[in-house]
Amino acid sequence: MGRGKIKMGLQKYLKLYIILDRRVGAPRSLEDQARAALEGGATIIQLRDKDMSGRELYEDARKIAPLCKRAGSAFIVNDRLDIALASGADGVHLGAKDIPVSAARSLVPEGFLIGASAHSIEEGRLAEAEGADYVGIGAVFATGTKDGAIVIGLDGVRAVRSILSIPSVAIGGISEDNAGEVMATGVDGVALASAVVGKRDIAAAARRFVSILSPS
Amino acid sequence: MGRGKIKMGLQKYLKLYIILDRRVGAPRSLEDQARAALEGGATIIQLRDKDMSGRELYEDARKIAPLCKRAGSAFIVNDRLDIALASGADGVHLGAKDIPVSAARSLVPEGFLIGASAHSIEEGRLAEAEGADYVGIGAVFATGTKDGAIVIGLDGVRAVRSILSIPSVAIGGISEDNAGEVMATGVDGVALASAVVGKRDIAAAARRFVSILSPS
Repeated sequence: MGRGKIKMGLQKYLKLYIILDRRVGAPRSLEDQARAALEGGATIIQLRDKDMSGRELYEDARKIAPLCKRAGSAFIVNDRLDIALASGADGVHLGAKDIPVSAARSLVPEGFLIGASAHSIEEGRLAEAEGADYVGIGAVFATGTKDGAIVIGLDGVRAVRSILSIPSVAIGGISEDNAGEVMATGVDGVALASAVVGKRDIAAAARRFVSILSPS
Repeated sequence: MGRGKIKMGLQKYLKLYIILDRRVGAPRSLEDQARAALEGGATIIQLRDKDMSGRELYEDARKIAPLCKRAGSAFIVNDRLDIALASGADGVHLGAKDIPVSAARSLVPEGFLIGASAHSIEEGRLAEAEGADYVGIGAVFATGTKDGAIVIGLDGVRAVRSILSIPSVAIGGISEDNAGEVMATGVDGVALASAVVGKRDIAAAARRFVSILSPS
């Protein structure tokens, strides 16, 4: 996919946003997790790992980027804008502990996606003002994959969503059981780690979310 | 300093290369360490911290970059090319665990410095082949500020130095007592952390190195 094309159709790409996780997805490599999630219909793959060295992340990113391209999905690297750029990723996702969205925006080519996290209306407004392309809103529910996440509930997600004019995805503790309610808040998609890469059959888990999110 | 100007006079900039260190330089902030080192004659300041978040590093880098500029010295960020670019640094230093020099080279503007670490002749050759502007050769001696550093001694430094056609700086356990011998290996300068930012009077320590390195 060309980057401009992803940005134009971003709402569609945000539908099934899968975050790879070395621990939760063990013993499968991040590359294997990505391959299975894409096979199951992931529309975005995010590479996130705060413990891997820059070199390790870069090497994994270089393997995952072409898998996403081939699947017609987008590839996003968390935090490390340098690795996103060097690996040919489609974008970067930035949280409150990462470089500011505005600083990142000044360094990236046209069409390169920048996502930001928001736990409140204020953070949502800031993300949009600084030039984010989409906002990850959460945590909707308590989650085991991110320590110390602030839980804002469905009402919190709805409130942040309501002030945004850019697309959004909900994150945090989303499961097959609650994904319907989450989508009803008005977000464009769900970001999932354990609910997909933590399952024995990653592709099947992704496929079940595809059915839940796109009822025929 | 314009970036092109630094690259042209790089050997001179490498003379007194000071690496900031939160632990060794405590309780002084990285910004205060930089200010004192520059006052004492540091020609390059490097920001290195593997534990700080991207946001923290970025914020410190944004404070230190203008100090270096004002002092006519160069500013280099370790590992995080994104933060180097976003903060207006003059370059990045990349070790074996960071993104490859060649990947970084493809992302940076003309004149942006890329340094690489080498512990052996092979790594020195690779750094130069991949497009590094200078090589940090070491560890010369055992060092307390970097765990697990490979010690190659003065002979090791001389060997790596001898195959390089780009400038180099020696690193690791360099003190006022051994700096003369280190310079005699043919390197263009010394990279120091504890020997300067670990001292009570950082500016005075830097000044003593200036005298040792440039005997009148």
